Amino acid sequence: MARDTRNDGHLDLTLERTIDAPRSLIWKAWTDAEHVKKWWAPAPWTTSQCEMDLRPGGIFRTVMRSPEGQEFPHVGCFLELIENEKLVITNVLEPGYRPANVGKGGEMVDCGDIPFTSILSLKERGEKTHYSVVVLHKDEAGRKRHEEMGFREGWNMCLDQLIDVVGRLKKLTQA
Amino acid sequence: MARDTRNDGHLDLTLERTIDAPRSLIWKAWTDAEHVKKWWAPAPWTTSQCEMDLRPGGIFRTVMRSPEGQEFPHVGCFLELIENEKLVITNVLEPGYRPANVGKGGEMVDCGDIPFTSILSLKERGEKTHYSVVVLHKDEAGRKRHEEMGFREGWNMCLDQLIDVVGRLKKLTQA
Repeated sequence: MARDTRNDGHLDLTLERTIDAPRSLIWKAWTDAEHVKKWWAPAPWTTSQCEMDLRPGGIFRTVMRSPEGQEFPHVGCFLELIENEKLVITNVLEPGYRPANVGKGGEMVDCGDIPFTSILSLKERGEKTHYSVVVLHKDEAGRKRHEEMGFREGWNMCLDQLIDVVGRLKKLTQA
Repeated sequence: MARDTRNDGHLDLTLERTIDAPRSLIWKAWTDAEHVKKWWAPAPWTTSQCEMDLRPGGIFRTVMRSPEGQEFPHVGCFLELIENEKLVITNVLEPGYRPANVGKGGEMVDCGDIPFTSILSLKERGEKTHYSVVVLHKDEAGRKRHEEMGFREGWNMCLDQLIDVVGRLKKLTQA
C-alpha cells in the first residue's frame, strides 16, 4: 500500500513565512538563475553557478562554494511548475527523469546525499504572500540528518537573503 | 556533473511498434483504469486492481495476480501527462512526490524492486501511431535485472493485449 503522502511531521521539514511582496516577485527570485545565485547559499557561502531549465524534467543545477573555495555541485530535476504558485524539485531523479544515484549508503557529507523532494507553495494574502517550503524525505533518518545538517538555520538564512532580493525587485517595480 | 540523460543503450530498455490506430485510442487504453486492467499484466497473469489519478504527482497503483492467486501491488507516481502524446511514470517517487523506498538493497523478486522511470511517447504516422516506451534505469545492473526478469517478452505480450483493446475501441468508434 502507498503511504500517506500528506505532510508528515516525522518525515518532513517545513519552512513558512509571510512576505510583504506579491507572489510574482518571489516567483521571479526563485526562477531566474541570476537572482537565485544571490540568495541560494547561506552567507558566507556563495552560489558560483546556477543552471535552470524551467520545465518538467528540466535541470536545476547549482554549485555552492564554501568560504575556503571548495565547490559542491548539486543536480536536481524540476517536476512541476505552476507560475507564481507551485514549484516542485527532487534530487531522486536526474534531469530527464532518470532515477538518480542518491542516498545509496555511504557517508552523508552534504544535503545532496539525502533523498528529498521540495515543494514551494506561494499563496496570496492581500498584497502579501504566504511562502511555504515542505521538504519530503523517504524516512525519519533522512529528515533527522537534514535537520542536523542545519536545515532550519540554513534555509531561514537563505530565505532572509531571498527576501532582500525580492525587496530590491519590488523597489525596481515601484521606481 | 549530471550524466547524459538521453536514451542510453546500457541503461535503458526500449519497446517500439507502429500501431494501426489513432493516438487518441491508445491514450484512452492507457489512461482508463478499466481498460488498463485488460492489458497491463501478461496472460495468464491478470490485473485485479488499477487506480489512476491522472495528474503530475498522482497515484498509479496496480495489483497483478499470478495464476496461483498471489497478488503483487505496485505503486508509482505520474510525473508528466501530455494528452495523446506523452506519459511519464516513476516508482522512485510515491504519489505526492515523496522519495520512495525502492531498490534499497535486498533481493529483487519483482520488477517493482528495480528503480525506473517509463516514458510513453505516441507520434502520428498518417492514420497510424508510432508507439514507444523507454524505461530509464539508474545503472546497468538495474537494466540487466529488468531484462532478465523478462522485460521484452512481458512488455511485448502486454503490448499485444493493449493492441487488442485498442482494436475493440476502434470498432466501437466505427460502429
